[in-house]
Amino acid sequence: MLRDFEVELSVGPGGLCQLLNEAYNRKMDITVRGFSGYNSRWMLPMLEQILAKRTARAHLPTVRLLALWLGPNDAAHPGEPQHVPRAEFAANLRAAVRMVRDPASAWHAPGTRVLLLTPPPVHVAQWVGFLSVAGQPAPRETTDRDFDGMKAYAEAVREVGMREGVPVVDVWSVLWEAAGRREEGLADIFLDGLHMKPVGYKLVYDAFIATILEHYPEIHYDNLPMAYPYWCDIIGKDHMQLLQHSSATTL
Amino acid sequence: MLRDFEVELSVGPGGLCQLLNEAYNRKMDITVRGFSGYNSRWMLPMLEQILAKRTARAHLPTVRLLALWLGPNDAAHPGEPQHVPRAEFAANLRAAVRMVRDPASAWHAPGTRVLLLTPPPVHVAQWVGFLSVAGQPAPRETTDRDFDGMKAYAEAVREVGMREGVPVVDVWSVLWEAAGRREEGLADIFLDGLHMKPVGYKLVYDAFIATILEHYPEIHYDNLPMAYPYWCDIIGKDHMQLLQHSSATTL
Repeated sequence: MLRDFEVELSVGPGGLCQLLNEAYNRKMDITVRGFSGYNSRWMLPMLEQILAKRTARAHLPTVRLLALWLGPNDAAHPGEPQHVPRAEFAANLRAAVRMVRDPASAWHAPGTRVLLLTPPPVHVAQWVGFLSVAGQPAPRETTDRDFDGMKAYAEAVREVGMREGVPVVDVWSVLWEAAGRREEGLADIFLDGLHMKPVGYKLVYDAFIATILEHYPEIHYDNLPMAYPYWCDIIGKDHMQLLQHSSATTL
Repeated sequence: MLRDFEVELSVGPGGLCQLLNEAYNRKMDITVRGFSGYNSRWMLPMLEQILAKRTARAHLPTVRLLALWLGPNDAAHPGEPQHVPRAEFAANLRAAVRMVRDPASAWHAPGTRVLLLTPPPVHVAQWVGFLSVAGQPAPRETTDRDFDGMKAYAEAVREVGMREGVPVVDVWSVLWEAAGRREEGLADIFLDGLHMKPVGYKLVYDAFIATILEHYPEIHYDNLPMAYPYWCDIIGKDHMQLLQHSSATTL
């Protein structure tokens, strides 16, 4: 999955990718391509390198699911270095989706399902607190993001999903509901107003899995075979024959 | 890395693979091929499928490190279904190492470093407690592994490492020292006498990284470049040029 933020936190204990690794262990590799601070404009040329072209794909494992989670950096205020106008953000997401969906694309991958995730809401007061101490490229006393702006970019993701026929994990709504629809309620979910604590990631994970179950049930972890048999099922059998045919990906 | 046990726990919060994922995020993919309950005899035909043959490798990412962690199942008592005699265990490990090291091997991979890990000590009393409740294939009141047996298989791994010139992460010794060289001390490290708590995994992780630093410093996480620049280094630059050359693996 490609994400533009929280890369370190997501692979940490209780992070989204750690939870996915656990759920899909021995069934499907979870490959993180997350780049803290990146926006959709920078993502596009990277995606062209990260995804294999059709011509190279015969030798590579199938990418069964491409999950794209962007927005929090694009939604920075106009004038801020990460800002990307909403319309361009939506166009970049559409371009990413069509990279694998469009038969004319050099990266066309009919075997690759696509999923979009909306950015989370932002807790501005908490975020300003963080920026005043650890803001990049330099600490600052004013916010570079606002609640309504992030909400608008979440809506942009939903619109792209609807237009392109791609399922959307509505992280924004899930977290906003969990916060009791109060910005103060987000403080329990976020570390710093924008990046999540494990409790927040668990909400995202649950929504992610629910979306897979609804739209791509064939790749829900309960519906995927385990690579190689359970060891007790090898006892007393011809292990050379049993271990010949498996879905373990070649490295 | 290939492991024969604790696969679910190792990708869980605080597990070895979760810790490695975090350390190597954006630098090197950590791919787990762990199969709970498996021994070295079953591992060999699987390794032939999991590793790519020379002829296919041009299209695949380089496996920079192959870490093999086996022994706890091989060390089950003679007559138990997972048991593999010590001499055969050592031969299987040598065969696995030579699969990538031997120029005559179809899987020869001169770019792949190899690492061996010794099995941990076993806390028999704790393990029997686990077996009496959740033993597989059925609960039982007697142990299927013993302290001296596990120690002997750890020694076998060290011998293979010495003979083949492969660095060894001596998990057995690290945990035994941490337990104050008392079997009772292992109870703080293990969940059930054989599988580790996060505190145990952290000890393994530290030893793993120390071994890499000593023998393969070029792949220590501090010495690997981050895929794609830090976002602040893109500001005001030609992002199309900056984002063209990177080490992010093609999927």
